[in-house]
Amino acid sequence: MADIEDMRKDFATVWVDVIQFGDADLISGLGKIFGLHSLALEDAVNTHQRPKVEEYDDQLFVVALMLDAKGSIDTEQVAFFIGEGYVVTFQEKRGDCFENVRDRIRKGTGRIRTASSDYTAYALLDAIVDGYFPALEKSGDTLELLEDHVISSPKPSNITELHHLKRDLLLLRRAIWPHRELFNSLIRDEHPLISKETRLFLRDCYDHTVQLMDIVETYREMASGLIDVHLSSVSMKLNEVMKVLTIVATIFIPLSFIASVYGMNFDRETSPWNMPELGWYLGYPFALLLMSASAGGLLWYIWKKGWLQ
Amino acid sequence: MADIEDMRKDFATVWVDVIQFGDADLISGLGKIFGLHSLALEDAVNTHQRPKVEEYDDQLFVVALMLDAKGSIDTEQVAFFIGEGYVVTFQEKRGDCFENVRDRIRKGTGRIRTASSDYTAYALLDAIVDGYFPALEKSGDTLELLEDHVISSPKPSNITELHHLKRDLLLLRRAIWPHRELFNSLIRDEHPLISKETRLFLRDCYDHTVQLMDIVETYREMASGLIDVHLSSVSMKLNEVMKVLTIVATIFIPLSFIASVYGMNFDRETSPWNMPELGWYLGYPFALLLMSASAGGLLWYIWKKGWLQ
Amino acid sequence: MADIEDMRKDFATVWVDVIQFGDADLISGLGKIFGLHSLALEDAVNTHQRPKVEEYDDQLFVVALMLDAKGSIDTEQVAFFIGEGYVVTFQEKRGDCFENVRDRIRKGTGRIRTASSDYTAYALLDAIVDGYFPALEKSGDTLELLEDHVISSPKPSNITELHHLKRDLLLLRRAIWPHRELFNSLIRDEHPLISKETRLFLRDCYDHTVQLMDIVETYREMASGLIDVHLSSVSMKLNEVMKVLTIVATIFIPLSFIASVYGMNFDRETSPWNMPELGWYLGYPFALLLMSASAGGLLWYIWKKGWLQ
Amino acid sequence: MADIEDMRKDFATVWVDVIQFGDADLISGLGKIFGLHSLALEDAVNTHQRPKVEEYDDQLFVVALMLDAKGSIDTEQVAFFIGEGYVVTFQEKRGDCFENVRDRIRKGTGRIRTASSDYTAYALLDAIVDGYFPALEKSGDTLELLEDHVISSPKPSNITELHHLKRDLLLLRRAIWPHRELFNSLIRDEHPLISKETRLFLRDCYDHTVQLMDIVETYREMASGLIDVHLSSVSMKLNEVMKVLTIVATIFIPLSFIASVYGMNFDRETSPWNMPELGWYLGYPFALLLMSASAGGLLWYIWKKGWLQ
Amino acid sequence: MADIEDMRKDFATVWVDVIQFGDADLISGLGKIFGLHSLALEDAVNTHQRPKVEEYDDQLFVVALMLDAKGSIDTEQVAFFIGEGYVVTFQEKRGDCFENVRDRIRKGTGRIRTASSDYTAYALLDAIVDGYFPALEKSGDTLELLEDHVISSPKPSNITELHHLKRDLLLLRRAIWPHRELFNSLIRDEHPLISKETRLFLRDCYDHTVQLMDIVETYREMASGLIDVHLSSVSMKLNEVMKVLTIVATIFIPLSFIASVYGMNFDRETSPWNMPELGWYLGYPFALLLMSASAGGLLWYIWKKGWLQ
Repeated sequence: MADIEDMRKDFATVWVDVIQFGDADLISGLGKIFGLHSLALEDAVNTHQRPKVEEYDDQLFVVALMLDAKGSIDTEQVAFFIGEGYVVTFQEKRGDCFENVRDRIRKGTGRIRTASSDYTAYALLDAIVDGYFPALEKSGDTLELLEDHVISSPKPSNITELHHLKRDLLLLRRAIWPHRELFNSLIRDEHPLISKETRLFLRDCYDHTVQLMDIVETYREMASGLIDVHLSSVSMKLNEVMKVLTIVATIFIPLSFIASVYGMNFDRETSPWNMPELGWYLGYPFALLLMSASAGGLLWYIWKKGWLQ
Repeated sequence: MADIEDMRKDFATVWVDVIQFGDADLISGLGKIFGLHSLALEDAVNTHQRPKVEEYDDQLFVVALMLDAKGSIDTEQVAFFIGEGYVVTFQEKRGDCFENVRDRIRKGTGRIRTASSDYTAYALLDAIVDGYFPALEKSGDTLELLEDHVISSPKPSNITELHHLKRDLLLLRRAIWPHRELFNSLIRDEHPLISKETRLFLRDCYDHTVQLMDIVETYREMASGLIDVHLSSVSMKLNEVMKVLTIVATIFIPLSFIASVYGMNFDRETSPWNMPELGWYLGYPFALLLMSASAGGLLWYIWKKGWLQ
Repeated sequence: MADIEDMRKDFATVWVDVIQFGDADLISGLGKIFGLHSLALEDAVNTHQRPKVEEYDDQLFVVALMLDAKGSIDTEQVAFFIGEGYVVTFQEKRGDCFENVRDRIRKGTGRIRTASSDYTAYALLDAIVDGYFPALEKSGDTLELLEDHVISSPKPSNITELHHLKRDLLLLRRAIWPHRELFNSLIRDEHPLISKETRLFLRDCYDHTVQLMDIVETYREMASGLIDVHLSSVSMKLNEVMKVLTIVATIFIPLSFIASVYGMNFDRETSPWNMPELGWYLGYPFALLLMSASAGGLLWYIWKKGWLQ
Repeated sequence: MADIEDMRKDFATVWVDVIQFGDADLISGLGKIFGLHSLALEDAVNTHQRPKVEEYDDQLFVVALMLDAKGSIDTEQVAFFIGEGYVVTFQEKRGDCFENVRDRIRKGTGRIRTASSDYTAYALLDAIVDGYFPALEKSGDTLELLEDHVISSPKPSNITELHHLKRDLLLLRRAIWPHRELFNSLIRDEHPLISKETRLFLRDCYDHTVQLMDIVETYREMASGLIDVHLSSVSMKLNEVMKVLTIVATIFIPLSFIASVYGMNFDRETSPWNMPELGWYLGYPFALLLMSASAGGLLWYIWKKGWLQ
Repeated sequence: MADIEDMRKDFATVWVDVIQFGDADLISGLGKIFGLHSLALEDAVNTHQRPKVEEYDDQLFVVALMLDAKGSIDTEQVAFFIGEGYVVTFQEKRGDCFENVRDRIRKGTGRIRTASSDYTAYALLDAIVDGYFPALEKSGDTLELLEDHVISSPKPSNITELHHLKRDLLLLRRAIWPHRELFNSLIRDEHPLISKETRLFLRDCYDHTVQLMDIVETYREMASGLIDVHLSSVSMKLNEVMKVLTIVATIFIPLSFIASVYGMNFDRETSPWNMPELGWYLGYPFALLLMSASAGGLLWYIWKKGWLQ
């Protein structure tokens, strides 16, 4: 703890990153050192906050949602306390998207090393927003793959996959959406802690958030469209199956009937009215001709209906 | 009644909770003691109000909707009169979500015992908002269960269950939605009764309300998506059933026809043209071969169509 | 006419209610007595106005839509001229929802008898808004009935009834919606004719209008949901019908084929290859066994597919 | 041209109506006489503008869309230059909805003859807005007719007609929608050319535009609803057809099978096991009984399923 | 580089167009000459910006999206730096829609040669917006073609084509939409670089963008409508196919059954109960009559159902 006090004298900005905040003493200690507002501290530790900005006297309290890992859609809350000369962050779990920022600090590259606290906060928030792009790219790839499948050979599993994709996009939208208001509020509210220049950088974050929302919405509409295409091609397939059944049944059922008639056993000897055809010289060819005519007529009807294409 | 007058002298804040307001005298008595505005008092007793905030000179009148019990979606109106040193609440029925607040008051834990009336009102409103979460969790569980069913083995009853779930979410949305405006108005309108600090707490209530709306909307979209999945899998099943029917019928109908033909009774003795096949040395094997060829050809056609997968 | 002039001296507020305005002289006479603006007077008589508020110098002109009768969805225009000491209303037809207000005036109960013109106008507008609730209740009852039918035993007529219900709700929404703006404008615009106290009452009308819109929207979404449920249960029924057809056809078509084969008349005396089965000692039992095996195999296949549940 | 200059001295307002603006000289001449802004003049002649209001120093430039003819949905651009003492209009084609206004001017009835330029412009704009009502009435009639057809006897052509109706309504909406902003801007922007009284008249135009939008939206929702009804009744019909097929096939296929069995030619003389039924004293009645029992059982099953209603 | 410095002295406005910005030196050189803000320069080179306007002290930074080629829907980023006396543009690829502007500059026609930098920027932005119209026209043509196909003879491929069309329109909407805000911001924000007159011109660009959005939305709704029409006509076709199958099967299955019955081989010599019909004098005509009666009755039933139309 005393180290932190010391560091605050030596560096332009101190960034304290608290992960898996189980230790209540540590947290209250940090609260004392940096003068963190108790209500905000409660929010920081309570992990079901919505992304937001809250102004306290000499402090900004920001809650953002970070994706757990590359391409995942599980989110993790990150709370920021931004004050003169310090940034304190609280993360739920180990593993984050800040490695890049840490590298830049370690190597001392870029302006991050000498920057004031607002720039440090921007760099971290920017890393969080950028962390959403890989997840969206993955969704985009899935969508493209499903598009190919659905159009060429729709399978029952496709609809489930599309449903899962839509659900993921819904969750991403729910995570991304409030960040728009968050950045808007940071840019617009002119808090003294946020310098005019950092505001220019935050404008970029805002633009990225809007872009993320754009992509999510486009993907969602495409996925909805694909469900329609899927339903339609299932219908078309059913149509095709039924057409084959109908053609085969329609042609052969009358033929079978004719054959059945001449398979009846009426006693020709009792009366000349009983099935005289069976005794005709060309009875069998006549029956075959009758069948051919019936089949031909029906085929012609079916062809006229346009079912043979 | 006189008791209440006394208590007002002894405590920082008096909370009077009126349940099942049938007694008109009691109500007019309370109205006199606390100077409750008659129009607001009418609204408090009339149980079909929409959540709202109304400012009277030295009083805030707030109507909120509370869920009846854990996981239920029936709502009950709670009217609040918030004034200097007192909070009067009117509930429709016994049974509420204030037990937690009462416990804290009884045990004297937290700041609730010494707090001013605005904090007491906040604590009660917060309890109301928190009361919606279990109902939503229950809906979420139902949704997850239905998702499993619909994807693995859709049943006709699923669609009815999804319909009921959507209706419940619709009713929850209708109940939650106006609270957003309610909290927004309490935070924004700067009524002298609401201290700056309580406003910070009310911001939390507002955030929770927005979160509740988010969840309701997400669940509703998921339920709508599941209905699509359900309809689609019903269509796919129909397709499969029809394919089996078509394959069986398409193969056997021509075979039966051939068999019927050779079951005809044309008189072979009358003429050599009448069914000479019946007298061939290999007539029967020829007929069987004809049938096999026909079946084979159709199977090949069906296989080519991709219906055997 | 002179009577009206007299009355204006004797009463706090004069309410003139013009029904079936065919008499142009009467109307221009009234226009002169109360100084009604000619453009507004034209609007009042022209019966296709949208609910609105228009301010003239010392006068408010309000157009509202009233439901014709309890539970009907046909609307009738009511125009109000509200001035210092008078309210003039123009109705299209006999029969309205003001009986209640008239009763209160006749009996002299409540504040209506001594009230100023703004309160009288409020009382009438309130009666109009309250007149929508029975129509919505009727729609709600129809919806509940249809819900029961659609879920338990969907009939083709249900879809037509749902369509009519949706159309009625659409028309109700179109009628109610502009009243929201109407009341909002009366409350917000601070016209000197509307006292601060009446504004409190109008807030209630506004709340009722919002509540009406809420209910209409909820009912519309429920009706849309029921159409989905209906379509889905029709699909499920088709599935069931097709499953029965497929099971019966799939089992019996191969059996019939076998029977047909042994019904062929190939000449067994010509060659030992011709249908030797017919002469076997256990030929018939063999054929029956063959049929049983075929039927059993297909039943097993169908059972495995899960179509027998 | 000189005539126009003269007229400007003699009349309160000069209205110049340019139709089929091919003559560039004429247009530049008019531009000089009335001091028309060149950018606006370009817009007036370029016929793909969106309805809008643009203020130039001492001039208002208004573009509106007029329906070509009664009941048509093709629109034609009308550009207005409104200045002190003159209105210049540019129309694409001959034939407009201004005949009524011209009549009033010719007969000198109403205030149109002595009115200032803003009133003249209002009269023309009002005529344009009123011109949309017949087109909507025609759509309403078509919708009603289609409603009757779809509910009583849906035909494949209905869906195409509904599609065309929806497309027409879409185009009408696109044409009407920007006029709302146009009138709103004329009323709200307080341009010195528009007198306070004309603003009252323009409020009426605004109301009509809102009403038009209301009707278009209602019709569009009704048409969408009818498409659902149509799809549903097509499904119900398919269901009915399939039920008849299934009942007939389910009952007769087993019967035919039984008949086929007793049509087999197993040699009864070879063995007592071969088709002994054929030699029974009551063999034929037994077979008929078997068939009746089978048919009866299946009919009972079908009746129990509720398919015979 | 020095050339550019010279040119800045000689011309009213210098337009530098950078294509395929691989050369970092060139870019930093330009940055120095024109004093381009480094953050904006980064954005200009980073090709995934959203259309936007950003104000720097004496400079406007504008990012727009240009369509690659006539009728294509691939977009390319164009970044503008607009300052006193210069416009610097950065394009991703060769090939743009500025040829028209270049021609006007080369030929010295119009005001473009002597115009200030804001007019030059307007001319380029106008060319970008106008570049969207051919792409939309192509979509419109595709839509019309598909409409004809879907209504007259729907094919499975139509649904895929409609899906692709909807996707293209979605991407166009995503590209066009932010330009509306871009132009709105240029018109409204009153930056000193944008003269009042150029604002009038930019109003036209804004109008075009709104018009583009209108067309895209109309096309999207039409495409969605066509998918419904397609699904409906597929359903109607299935209905027709099933009706033919049902009629043929329903009529012939009972007939075949009758024929099968009289094809049974019960031994007439054993008992007078065994198939006495076979020995009747008019047995065969009786059987044919029975069949005709059955077929006639079923045809009458089917005709009554209205399935023969």
